[in-house]
Amino acid sequence: MPSPAHVLETAIYVDDLDAAQAFYRDVIGLEEIRREGDRHVFFRCGPGVFLVFRPEVTERGPEPGALPIPPHGARGPGHTCFAAEPDGIEAWRDRLGRAGVAIEQEIAWPKGGRSLYFRDPAGNSLEIAEAVLWSPAKEE
Amino acid sequence: MPSPAHVLETAIYVDDLDAAQAFYRDVIGLEEIRREGDRHVFFRCGPGVFLVFRPEVTERGPEPGALPIPPHGARGPGHTCFAAEPDGIEAWRDRLGRAGVAIEQEIAWPKGGRSLYFRDPAGNSLEIAEAVLWSPAKEE
Repeated sequence: MPSPAHVLETAIYVDDLDAAQAFYRDVIGLEEIRREGDRHVFFRCGPGVFLVFRPEVTERGPEPGALPIPPHGARGPGHTCFAAEPDGIEAWRDRLGRAGVAIEQEIAWPKGGRSLYFRDPAGNSLEIAEAVLWSPAKEE
Repeated sequence: MPSPAHVLETAIYVDDLDAAQAFYRDVIGLEEIRREGDRHVFFRCGPGVFLVFRPEVTERGPEPGALPIPPHGARGPGHTCFAAEPDGIEAWRDRLGRAGVAIEQEIAWPKGGRSLYFRDPAGNSLEIAEAVLWSPAKEE
């Protein structure tokens, strides 16, 4: 019975691609793969990729002659969490502070692990969390 | 300069949590972690987790006495791609067919790698892709 080894693409939607490109590259520190006009900007992150789309474009579906990628596109604040590793929560708190990004919330989870919550320029809810939060040992 | 090791949480939004729970568990084959009422159902997937939320609940923010998790919640078709590995595209085509899930599109990418596109019960655009699609060697 097939089961996927991992998530390969995590997608989020934004209104302003320039602002998102700068934020995910310079504040989150993701490696940019490529940007396509005002449609998307893609980043590498661990074994997968992080895809930032403008729904106004992707929900229209492919242009004539383009690959027939099915339409999609969500509105409103989505959510993504990045692993705090390898640098750790303190390094991230410092980095976000230096970048002028407000920490909306900090949570110390009852079973272990800490999270920082903040927003990307489009208002998506982002989280940096210690991966121990999701270790199987925490889930009995 | 911190950079996250990987995406820890990939989120998607649905209207019907029962339908989503059955689909992601029985068709996609994800390991369920837990469900919380009509708010969410969480699954494990590789080094991260896949979170399925009902935006009607999450956009209201926490209930009194609950952990102060910031509100979020998107509407409209989102997108997630799962790695075809370790079973391969053919096994996935068979599995989706047996489950009665229509393949909306198949794409053989110009630089290598194949994708199957289909919809979850909420209309989100899902993809199963060969991970070679995003190998750095394809991105020169």
